[in-house]
Amino acid sequence: MEHSIRKKVLRKITYGVYILAVKLDDKYSAATITWVSQASFEPPLLMIGLKKLSNSYKFVIDSKKFSINILNDSQKNMAASFFKNTKYEKGELNGYEIKEGKTGVPVFIEVNSFLECELVKVIEGGDHDIIVAEIKNFENLTGQEVLNLRSTGWNYGG
Amino acid sequence: MEHSIRKKVLRKITYGVYILAVKLDDKYSAATITWVSQASFEPPLLMIGLKKLSNSYKFVIDSKKFSINILNDSQKNMAASFFKNTKYEKGELNGYEIKEGKTGVPVFIEVNSFLECELVKVIEGGDHDIIVAEIKNFENLTGQEVLNLRSTGWNYGG
Repeated sequence: MEHSIRKKVLRKITYGVYILAVKLDDKYSAATITWVSQASFEPPLLMIGLKKLSNSYKFVIDSKKFSINILNDSQKNMAASFFKNTKYEKGELNGYEIKEGKTGVPVFIEVNSFLECELVKVIEGGDHDIIVAEIKNFENLTGQEVLNLRSTGWNYGG
Repeated sequence: MEHSIRKKVLRKITYGVYILAVKLDDKYSAATITWVSQASFEPPLLMIGLKKLSNSYKFVIDSKKFSINILNDSQKNMAASFFKNTKYEKGELNGYEIKEGKTGVPVFIEVNSFLECELVKVIEGGDHDIIVAEIKNFENLTGQEVLNLRSTGWNYGG
């Protein structure tokens, strides 16, 4: 009962929906995540809660750079496809075209916008660690509304 | 130009609107904040980007506990009132009634819900630090929709 109320309250925190993408040597990993916030204006930092020992977590720790792709509100299906394992084929991850960003990280071509990030530090948390990263490049691709977690009917919190 | 695009992209991150409230000895501080996310399920942790050397920041560091009050979508005026300095008078902060939560932190009576938090660590960031805190108590007060930053027309990011 206690725990179900805690879950209810924690799910009232407001989140977006993002795809983190990372390349290590010739392998890719991409994952849909929600625990993302800016953490400083100068330098421009993000803080990200990332599941410990997930594939993307391991790739981020080793490659030290990654992208955060911000989705349009029409891209719920794209978000869902990155709940699954990442498959690279012919310039696409799980069927979605990528390119190499300025800093060398994989970024998606058909998203709202993206941020290219460089790992600053990893803070030990609980079942997720806190990734602190500096924004090194960015592109604003569309003026569409962004996807927010509440509108998807999904939850990640509690 | 570069900076204005960076601002545009960073403002596409999705946030809620919260009032952080803290008591130190017999003094109170409360501030409207947006950079809040869960950071772990077990233990239940939050990560918060808090402006360095703001009054609330100093109170949190010293008192080591605080509340995060989640607002209803009708409470934009309440959020705006905590852009200003905090005044305590007759059991109210800036005109909004508080009570003492189970863990001794001030919490608002007429909000959507609240989380009582205990400071775990402070991570040095840039112009804001990252406050990592464990959730020690919580109350779910209403089933109303919560206030999100985008709907207010305000921005905090860039």
